[in-house]
Amino acid sequence: MVSKCPKKEGESFSEWFECILREAEIYDYGRYPVKGVGVWLPYGFQIRKHVIETIRKLLDETGHEEILLPLLIPETIFRKESEHVRGFEGEVYWVTKAGFNELDVRLVLRPTSETVLSYMESLWIKSYRQLPKKYYQIVNIFRYETKMTKPMIRLREVSTFKEAHTLHESFEDAERLVMEAVNIYREFFDLLGIPYLISKRPQWDKFAGALYTIAFDTLLPDGKALQIGTVHNLGQTFTSVYDVKIQKRDETIDYGWQTSYGISERVIASVIAFHSDERGLILPPLIAPIQVVVVPIPVVDNAEKRKEVMEYAQDVYSELKSAGYRVKLDDREELRPVDKYFEWELKGVPLRVEIGKRETEQRKVTLFRRDTLQRYVIERPRLIEAVSTILKEIGEYLRQRAWKWFSERIKTFDSLDEAIDYVRQGGIAQIPWCGDEREAYEAIEKLEAVSVLGAPIPAIERVDVTDKKCALCGGKAYTYLRLAKRY
Amino acid sequence: MVSKCPKKEGESFSEWFECILREAEIYDYGRYPVKGVGVWLPYGFQIRKHVIETIRKLLDETGHEEILLPLLIPETIFRKESEHVRGFEGEVYWVTKAGFNELDVRLVLRPTSETVLSYMESLWIKSYRQLPKKYYQIVNIFRYETKMTKPMIRLREVSTFKEAHTLHESFEDAERLVMEAVNIYREFFDLLGIPYLISKRPQWDKFAGALYTIAFDTLLPDGKALQIGTVHNLGQTFTSVYDVKIQKRDETIDYGWQTSYGISERVIASVIAFHSDERGLILPPLIAPIQVVVVPIPVVDNAEKRKEVMEYAQDVYSELKSAGYRVKLDDREELRPVDKYFEWELKGVPLRVEIGKRETEQRKVTLFRRDTLQRYVIERPRLIEAVSTILKEIGEYLRQRAWKWFSERIKTFDSLDEAIDYVRQGGIAQIPWCGDEREAYEAIEKLEAVSVLGAPIPAIERVDVTDKKCALCGGKAYTYLRLAKRY
Repeated sequence: MVSKCPKKEGESFSEWFECILREAEIYDYGRYPVKGVGVWLPYGFQIRKHVIETIRKLLDETGHEEILLPLLIPETIFRKESEHVRGFEGEVYWVTKAGFNELDVRLVLRPTSETVLSYMESLWIKSYRQLPKKYYQIVNIFRYETKMTKPMIRLREVSTFKEAHTLHESFEDAERLVMEAVNIYREFFDLLGIPYLISKRPQWDKFAGALYTIAFDTLLPDGKALQIGTVHNLGQTFTSVYDVKIQKRDETIDYGWQTSYGISERVIASVIAFHSDERGLILPPLIAPIQVVVVPIPVVDNAEKRKEVMEYAQDVYSELKSAGYRVKLDDREELRPVDKYFEWELKGVPLRVEIGKRETEQRKVTLFRRDTLQRYVIERPRLIEAVSTILKEIGEYLRQRAWKWFSERIKTFDSLDEAIDYVRQGGIAQIPWCGDEREAYEAIEKLEAVSVLGAPIPAIERVDVTDKKCALCGGKAYTYLRLAKRY
Repeated sequence: MVSKCPKKEGESFSEWFECILREAEIYDYGRYPVKGVGVWLPYGFQIRKHVIETIRKLLDETGHEEILLPLLIPETIFRKESEHVRGFEGEVYWVTKAGFNELDVRLVLRPTSETVLSYMESLWIKSYRQLPKKYYQIVNIFRYETKMTKPMIRLREVSTFKEAHTLHESFEDAERLVMEAVNIYREFFDLLGIPYLISKRPQWDKFAGALYTIAFDTLLPDGKALQIGTVHNLGQTFTSVYDVKIQKRDETIDYGWQTSYGISERVIASVIAFHSDERGLILPPLIAPIQVVVVPIPVVDNAEKRKEVMEYAQDVYSELKSAGYRVKLDDREELRPVDKYFEWELKGVPLRVEIGKRETEQRKVTLFRRDTLQRYVIERPRLIEAVSTILKEIGEYLRQRAWKWFSERIKTFDSLDEAIDYVRQGGIAQIPWCGDEREAYEAIEKLEAVSVLGAPIPAIERVDVTDKKCALCGGKAYTYLRLAKRY
């Protein structure tokens, strides 16, 4: 049965997305009277929790320490680094009053925490012996977005911001950390089955205060690229302003070197956008609040058989539960099995176990895969083995299907005009490029509905542009420039 | 070895508390230039995480659903319920500006979320069939405290606020939920070993908008009572104002009935205050980031023996790890065992395993209990069994010791003057009372350093005041009135 929502591809994507968030009870958006903020509903909250646990595990395993910094930044601290201020002051919220008093020092709601943490690091870190330091926190941040807001994608209260911040003795150590962060994010997005391109942003689009920014972009079904993660080499921008001085191995004193990297609930928006179909959500088992739902099919005309079916279903439920799965037994009496199927398909439960008279009598179970819609009839003793195998396959299938769709939409053109045409159709275009950013800015950033994503990173991707000419100036090409419509 | 901090009892408590937070690396307070806000450091963050997991488990098991509501409350929503506004408007932070614009509608940083949730419930809940609803969230809240701020105890950014909110068809259902909430909190505080008194607050001290408030109070080592949890029956105060109308079983329409209940990082402050000694923290194993630390004692003059000891320690560590304990092997070479002992005692690790030449040769382990400072020598095969038993004993010992200290400080007096004297010495006093709140207010609230906690709740505690006279008016006593110095 299909859900009420419109088609997710093309122009109806936004409408589809808001519909699926509402119907699957993930996120209530657009009804609370503050623009650009939403409410995480119980089911959505559980998805969010498993996504957070996934990134937390990756960070904890790589020596990151979780902390929690204040939300409020005094204007005096906020204004110290001028490039950073220029980048953010147009979009910060100001607390100017408390109780009945005007504040002497106005407070900013954090748009990100480089300023706060650097201030604290100047108190905490004195010696190279304490380094490297890798901190992270998962918090809400605030940005007064002037562009059209969208649930999870462009918010004024980003409620799920994971920001990591590291401090090092040398530029080289920070450079190594940038690559470590990129690899952590690759693993994270791979676990969720979200495809991505990794590009070095042009200077005009880097994080305010960074030496450079590396970004992960994916592509939503409406053909617009979405930035889902960024990694910044911050150099000594903040350490020099906030006086984070470190005694080095050679006993000299110098400012520390920093990186920072962040992701947000855009990751969850991407999971939803990629893995859904006309019936609704399909959740990767890793983050599904319910991985397996057991639905008994009651026997209408025989009380004893009915009881047997219920007991058998309860038994299957208990076995799955003991094996550590997030499993639900849907024994609601007021609903028909078909209504339950509809509901759990809409909510993206990866695997359904159907148990009726036949299954009970023959000691079998029927499994239904949400992603491929396949049914399997399994001997009861094979239950756990089959569930384990199929859940793994679902995660893998979703990832491969998403990458296939994504890869097909990345095309390389020798001519800028063809690339622009393709971007306007909803793809990501690559053109051979000499590397001159000023030229790229002049040629592309003024165009409507076309933006620069940046260039591939040699240490990550091999690019062959032998004998190619730059599509912008006709000179020798050294890399590709990537273009897309962007959120 | 004793820690650097002063004595925790009596007047030096505040100083001791700030010292232990700093020395044990829990919470950085007083250095960030916004009053009443702090930074959770990595070790403290892990304690906080385990405390949160503990309450989350209790709430999830009792059918509470976790959600996440917006931080920003528009003035129009905030001002709807007049009693609530009167209670909070003197202490809310106002966002009046965003980017370069003055906001048309000013925004309040949530001091609590009854207003926001009631607004959403008016959209979500229509029928008794959807009830009861039990929501909770764990968030930061903001209160512009004018009293002296204190880390974790009186903050302007409360970073760890668990607020639960329920909705019911009838007053009776809400009443039942109040008792359920009280029982959940009792279990929670018992798990952490924090002693408490449960009192019904007088009307002048209830939550702004509630019918009544039940509070949990504990006593800190300086002799001041600390409110560590509250449960409110909200009646129809908010549902009538925010129009949360529900179709009832009998098909009539009426406003729903609500309760709310909250706890904060004051719980963590209490754990620290109760269970520490002159060496530092003692953490209940349930919330200890490290439950067991394994410290090898290197053999100085024999490389082969040294290697054997290290391998044996590694082995013990692996076995504890596999058994599911949060365990650390402290194999740092630059520190002497005694320095490691000092550090982990200060940080409150409940159990230490010491492994030297003798233990290795004899296939034994030496266990050291942080709470009683006892040592045990155990045969290696008994390791897991002994660790499991001792950790349980530590939790139990801490709880009993805390309750003993607390109970000894609650005394009953027939005369108000004696009660006041005792309160000023740092105890909790009970006096027989007729139940007239106006009288209590007149007699007590104007006194310096003495406040009313309230009266016991008959459904929770049996109170025998047969033949007693009210210490305030001389009339017949029906219950006790409890008095204390209060934070």
